[in-house]
Amino acid sequence: MRVILGTGELSVTDRGLLYGEGVFETLHVRPDGPWLLDRHLERLAGSAALLGIPVPENVAELAAGVTHEDGALRLVVTPSTAFATLAAVPESIRAERSTGIRLLTHDLGVTRRPPWSLAGAKTLSYAENLAAKRWAQQQGADDLLWLTSDGFALEGPTSSLVWLEGDTLFTVPPERAGILAGTTVAQLMCCAGALGLRTGEKMIPVGELDRAGAIWLASSLRGLAEARTLDGKQRAASPWTPRLLELLGFSRRRG
Amino acid sequence: MRVILGTGELSVTDRGLLYGEGVFETLHVRPDGPWLLDRHLERLAGSAALLGIPVPENVAELAAGVTHEDGALRLVVTPSTAFATLAAVPESIRAERSTGIRLLTHDLGVTRRPPWSLAGAKTLSYAENLAAKRWAQQQGADDLLWLTSDGFALEGPTSSLVWLEGDTLFTVPPERAGILAGTTVAQLMCCAGALGLRTGEKMIPVGELDRAGAIWLASSLRGLAEARTLDGKQRAASPWTPRLLELLGFSRRRG
Repeated sequence: MRVILGTGELSVTDRGLLYGEGVFETLHVRPDGPWLLDRHLERLAGSAALLGIPVPENVAELAAGVTHEDGALRLVVTPSTAFATLAAVPESIRAERSTGIRLLTHDLGVTRRPPWSLAGAKTLSYAENLAAKRWAQQQGADDLLWLTSDGFALEGPTSSLVWLEGDTLFTVPPERAGILAGTTVAQLMCCAGALGLRTGEKMIPVGELDRAGAIWLASSLRGLAEARTLDGKQRAASPWTPRLLELLGFSRRRG
Repeated sequence: MRVILGTGELSVTDRGLLYGEGVFETLHVRPDGPWLLDRHLERLAGSAALLGIPVPENVAELAAGVTHEDGALRLVVTPSTAFATLAAVPESIRAERSTGIRLLTHDLGVTRRPPWSLAGAKTLSYAENLAAKRWAQQQGADDLLWLTSDGFALEGPTSSLVWLEGDTLFTVPPERAGILAGTTVAQLMCCAGALGLRTGEKMIPVGELDRAGAIWLASSLRGLAEARTLDGKQRAASPWTPRLLELLGFSRRRG
């Protein structure tokens, strides 16, 4: 992993390390540079504002000139420092673009977000997200889809939900659901018209989701990972998966 | 703040900094050394086990020989490093031992903890806890008491709940409630017999809590902070507050 040092100094007195009070973005890096940089910088600023952390003006410079065949760039901003790390996308994640994933659903145990909620910010306090994903893996799945207490789909611990009904691509409305707005899914919704697909946002009970034409988790490094099982039940591979991945610029060469 | 460096090196590739995947303990440091060190080390080990992080065998050495008139020692363990920081207890926290606090209650929005929950671990993913406390302060209070969706008291974002009914000191059962087991409250429950008090654990609706003889938030640095208002309603100062603080070794000199 290459570290691109930015402003400030890494210190054990930094609140980012001491309390997870920092924000981050993970970007896919391509031969022509970081993908969707402006959108990620915009979300980074929004996350930082929710935590009351200033973002250094020159944070975009951390991503300047960074290229990779299939890379992962992580921008991190804490109260006292900003830095980036660059690494190749792990093979396990690359594989999920073509092989898909075994997806498990589970109630998040949350009725409604409290007024201080940071669910709309991408913070360094990420241990619970990763614990949720590890738990799904311990159950023999690859990833998790969080549900509301009354069974509506929300998001994955590190991804957004997308599904196909007829010729319409749907995702979950982030503000209404109290979840993080996805950058990959936003790009997908922008471009889907080029393939003749319509787009929409709605809350969906997991029972209805099961009848969708296709189900994906969307995130920066995977692009789209199709659910080939949902709670253990097999699902046929969708012909849309390679088309949508190509639309997002994940070529077969990289995928 | 003094930093006591332990094993390993602080690195931006450490999962403690990158994902908040680390654990910590805050200890009160007295002229005779760190208070309740064994109990804190035990909880640190339990938190680390929940995250799958090994605790260096010599972590206790970070606290060895540390003394202070009224200090705060923070032990931090991440996957690649262990260190401690030492500082004076802030005056604002010292003051709460004698003046008490304005306590606000709010639904945590959680029905039940999911199976991957880290609520029983003290992790570096602490941003949401601190955001909750900041929110309470924005409402004109000093601290927050989290409630279940059906109105039962749980804990504060950085403290445990203790209350008095007749001559019995109560706290919330940590395992049943899915909250962190407090070190200060455990010590209080051990010693309360010396003052002729009985002890117990139970779930309590906030309406009943309001009728308690006294209500405190217990934590390592404050010891006990008495709720002098609960959701804006005034409460008389309890004669038990100075007695219990003294029992816990928070002398008037320090408090």
